Amino acid sequence: MEKTTKVSSHRRTAPTSRRPVRRGIPSSREILSSERPVAHSPSIPREDRVRIIPLGGVEEVGRNMTIVEYKDDIILIDAGLQFPEEETPGIDYIIPNTKYLQNKLNRIRGLIISHGHLDHIGGIPYLFKDIGNPPIYTSQITKAMIMKRQEEFTHAPKLNIIEVKTQQTVKIGKYISAKFFTIAHNVPDAIGIILETPIGNIVYPGDFKIDRDENGEPLNVKEYGEIGKENNLVLLLESTNAEKPGFSISEREARDNIKQVLTDARGRVIIGTFSSLMERVIEAVSVSEELGKKVVIDGYSMKANLEIVQNFGFFNPKKDTIISAERMSDYPNNKIVIICTGAQGEENATLMRVANKRHKSIKIVPGDAVILSSSVIPGNEKSIQNLKDNLSRQGAIIVHSGILDVHASGHACQEELKLMTKLINPKFFIPIHGHYFMLRNNATLAESLGIPAQNIVVPLNNGAIIEATKEKIEVLAESAPANYVMVDGLGVGDVKEVVLRDRQMLAQDGIFVIITVIDSKTGRVRSSPDIISRGFIYLRESQDLLKQTRHLIVRATEEAIGKMHPINITYVKEVIRERVAKFLFQKTKRRPIILPVLIEV
Amino acid sequence: MEKTTKVSSHRRTAPTSRRPVRRGIPSSREILSSERPVAHSPSIPREDRVRIIPLGGVEEVGRNMTIVEYKDDIILIDAGLQFPEEETPGIDYIIPNTKYLQNKLNRIRGLIISHGHLDHIGGIPYLFKDIGNPPIYTSQITKAMIMKRQEEFTHAPKLNIIEVKTQQTVKIGKYISAKFFTIAHNVPDAIGIILETPIGNIVYPGDFKIDRDENGEPLNVKEYGEIGKENNLVLLLESTNAEKPGFSISEREARDNIKQVLTDARGRVIIGTFSSLMERVIEAVSVSEELGKKVVIDGYSMKANLEIVQNFGFFNPKKDTIISAERMSDYPNNKIVIICTGAQGEENATLMRVANKRHKSIKIVPGDAVILSSSVIPGNEKSIQNLKDNLSRQGAIIVHSGILDVHASGHACQEELKLMTKLINPKFFIPIHGHYFMLRNNATLAESLGIPAQNIVVPLNNGAIIEATKEKIEVLAESAPANYVMVDGLGVGDVKEVVLRDRQMLAQDGIFVIITVIDSKTGRVRSSPDIISRGFIYLRESQDLLKQTRHLIVRATEEAIGKMHPINITYVKEVIRERVAKFLFQKTKRRPIILPVLIEV
Repeated sequence: MEKTTKVSSHRRTAPTSRRPVRRGIPSSREILSSERPVAHSPSIPREDRVRIIPLGGVEEVGRNMTIVEYKDDIILIDAGLQFPEEETPGIDYIIPNTKYLQNKLNRIRGLIISHGHLDHIGGIPYLFKDIGNPPIYTSQITKAMIMKRQEEFTHAPKLNIIEVKTQQTVKIGKYISAKFFTIAHNVPDAIGIILETPIGNIVYPGDFKIDRDENGEPLNVKEYGEIGKENNLVLLLESTNAEKPGFSISEREARDNIKQVLTDARGRVIIGTFSSLMERVIEAVSVSEELGKKVVIDGYSMKANLEIVQNFGFFNPKKDTIISAERMSDYPNNKIVIICTGAQGEENATLMRVANKRHKSIKIVPGDAVILSSSVIPGNEKSIQNLKDNLSRQGAIIVHSGILDVHASGHACQEELKLMTKLINPKFFIPIHGHYFMLRNNATLAESLGIPAQNIVVPLNNGAIIEATKEKIEVLAESAPANYVMVDGLGVGDVKEVVLRDRQMLAQDGIFVIITVIDSKTGRVRSSPDIISRGFIYLRESQDLLKQTRHLIVRATEEAIGKMHPINITYVKEVIRERVAKFLFQKTKRRPIILPVLIEV
Repeated sequence: MEKTTKVSSHRRTAPTSRRPVRRGIPSSREILSSERPVAHSPSIPREDRVRIIPLGGVEEVGRNMTIVEYKDDIILIDAGLQFPEEETPGIDYIIPNTKYLQNKLNRIRGLIISHGHLDHIGGIPYLFKDIGNPPIYTSQITKAMIMKRQEEFTHAPKLNIIEVKTQQTVKIGKYISAKFFTIAHNVPDAIGIILETPIGNIVYPGDFKIDRDENGEPLNVKEYGEIGKENNLVLLLESTNAEKPGFSISEREARDNIKQVLTDARGRVIIGTFSSLMERVIEAVSVSEELGKKVVIDGYSMKANLEIVQNFGFFNPKKDTIISAERMSDYPNNKIVIICTGAQGEENATLMRVANKRHKSIKIVPGDAVILSSSVIPGNEKSIQNLKDNLSRQGAIIVHSGILDVHASGHACQEELKLMTKLINPKFFIPIHGHYFMLRNNATLAESLGIPAQNIVVPLNNGAIIEATKEKIEVLAESAPANYVMVDGLGVGDVKEVVLRDRQMLAQDGIFVIITVIDSKTGRVRSSPDIISRGFIYLRESQDLLKQTRHLIVRATEEAIGKMHPINITYVKEVIRERVAKFLFQKTKRRPIILPVLIEV
């Protein structure tokens, strides 16, 4: 009952049938797919077992968080967020469910963060108090990115972040030490994590790719080969690109292709990318410098990130390379490169504002080349199409990855996944980070390398509790809670599925509120009922329907009341609701949420 | 003002600022992008000019409809629908806007339909009365598909459909004759259209591909070459795959690959596809027959379509090839092929019900192979991912186009588009069917063949009025009306953007209705106000907030009324709305639609 008034409005019953064409909004069953019975929160794993629980990131791309538990040591890895989905309207983010940890706060030894992308750090401000504000271990740049973000959360408790370096070993728990290794990703200073437990190592490269040098030789493989000589019990391997054969495009190729476009350009070049793809931005600035072009950086988050990497010496442009948008007119068009956010068609990012002619200082001139240097995030296809259409309408020439490899994914493709697995040479293999089908693909790759099927666990759901001994790996029957925790405005976890279901229904056919004032003595309706409706029909052109509905309401109300005394408000409202619903459906084939309110005077 | 009660609820003002994270719902500006000033509905095109107006299909994939006008002859080509978009919640379909034709009904000589897919026939039941129920010219199978669909619209006027054949010429207008030619698409009996006007031909192949024989030789090119010898003034060419290089996969390759999967299968094979991809279904049945397998067809629309093509002799399975789902257990698993709908993850289609364990007679058995033989329609990515995940979780092996070419698009890729353009050899070129960026690509292809840029018109928007003489082609300054006409339940065009905007806002943060009863004599609030809310917060866990809000309402109301007499209801409501909005935003960072109702007693 999501209702609380004294003059109570009755909760509608579920619609009895659906119209045939209802795309996009899945049933609530699907939203709840990750909600499954939790027998109990099993306490400490048995002696000589390491327990691994992916709290997020195995049913989706995003909200990555993994628990590693040995005896009474709990180490957390990453605390990401997921962007909202079609079935979660109005939601800002979805974060990992940390309920499993609730009674174990004193055993949490620390949170290790692999790199500074939101699907790895974004959950921190929302869930950190709930997990007892443990120390965070991470690299220099990632620390700066976490701190930068934390500034937006003025009431959040102060974070205790301990900087770590690759090759360094840190004792984090009573039994567990962490060691860090080099990772290539599209943000600087990403680290891989090795948790050394008494029964073997848990290896977590996080998001990675294996980049190649100018001769096509894979980088960092010697380091990974050294790790492979140790006692590696479990490899947790990302699956984002597990469906993609071969090697990912190298950053070098993307750079060369961008350079080619910049060289050929007879006008300006606008490069749209993610604000978090720092490596790309750094490369694009350096290529522009080589070609003697000036660079305008536009987008708040991109500037903020650049400042961080610049402060730590990862980015060193010449003094006059970067200019302000206002100074563009001082140079010929073919000397200008604009690097900005919005390649995903995000509503308020630079490129989208340029495309929609809402940007203050950047307007498309026919002949501008626009490079979309990012992957298409599922769900953004339509926005990106709009973006391309609107830029193209204004005369821009669009270059995207479908035309030329101007984007290099930061995630390993099949050959890289296989290489990493081979080098680390673990006894057990757990694919993580991706939809089930992607994890399954990753598992198949591991199998192809000779890891026996019984040594591979593909987590069916977030919250799966996996335990490994030295000899075997298994999934427990019970699961950790994993249902959605949604962030909406200031609320974290307060939006329940009933609220989402209402939002979905409201989005479908709107709402129809009926306010009827009854004379409690005579049982008659006093004056014509009031109707408030939103999202149902265009009321101004529906006067006839409203008139008929008002008549119906009066008749239904008075018939329902009859000689009843005292008036059973709940009953009368239900009669009104049912009759109005039927009438409106018959007239419109729509099913707004109908809320009758009765006021006795 | 979308409001109609005597005790009027004030329309909210637009939210003053947006929260940063608001993905998915574009601004209303974008929804209205196709609404632009219409100077007047220009009457008859000037002497010796042919006018071409794409009413739909040049800003989207779908709702294809084109007007061809010469003197007082108007011929319409296709009347499709478009599926709803993220920014049109609750809508069933979007159809072409036919307002331009309103005062010209007596000049409409006929509607020619190229083939039976919904983006070409789906608008008929909704817009036909408005355009005066003209005669329809089309092929045998397409006629049957139109009639079949019309059965769902019991009150629709009877259609007058004239069957035509390829190579046949029909005089349709005073000046215009139509001739039809062979088209390969993935539905049987598609026809290309040539409108012969006194100044030259308008050629419209519709949706097409150029299929190839076993030696890789393109089919139908001789026929197209013959057409090329005529006086072809304008070619209207589809752009769906204009970004894709090379030739499309041939039906033969898709068939061979499906056959391979069927041959190798050690268990059942489930083939999911569109119900309208008749060619694919026919091929899949024939391959199964060759391999001695039995076929179960599941999905209402697929069965209905098969019945039509079977009635006309396009489909002739052996008597015992097709069996009912109930009889599957009579055969070993590797003798069973199931062909069904739902490869797009459509909520109620067969494959989705199988994946969600909601199908009565078909359940996944580990080892089942599932072939997804369809393209991914933009917007369906997420549903298809869910589909694959759920099938994979149950042990199915998934084969999709990314793995093996088990789908052949029905739309021409770049080499086919160029081949068709070269063969038809038109003076003028107009790319249609697709987003602007796709049309632009198609135009570039035509230019690469030597058609001068000034002979190519890329329509900027639906409703663009294009006129060609023998010598030149141009776009008029004014446009035909082209804003969205939406079908929602029984309503066609009655959902205005204000209703959509409300649905979007409701989906974001819900609604908050406040009912306050005032004693008109004392100006005091009688008892505590009632609050009805949906989609905002989980009320049951927000008692405190509600209590505070009620106090605020009473205070705000009584302060606003003060000693006012008579009470200015509008003013008081506005005060309540503003103060409650501010309070709730401060407490939750959410902006529900707030509707205060005041009742004086």
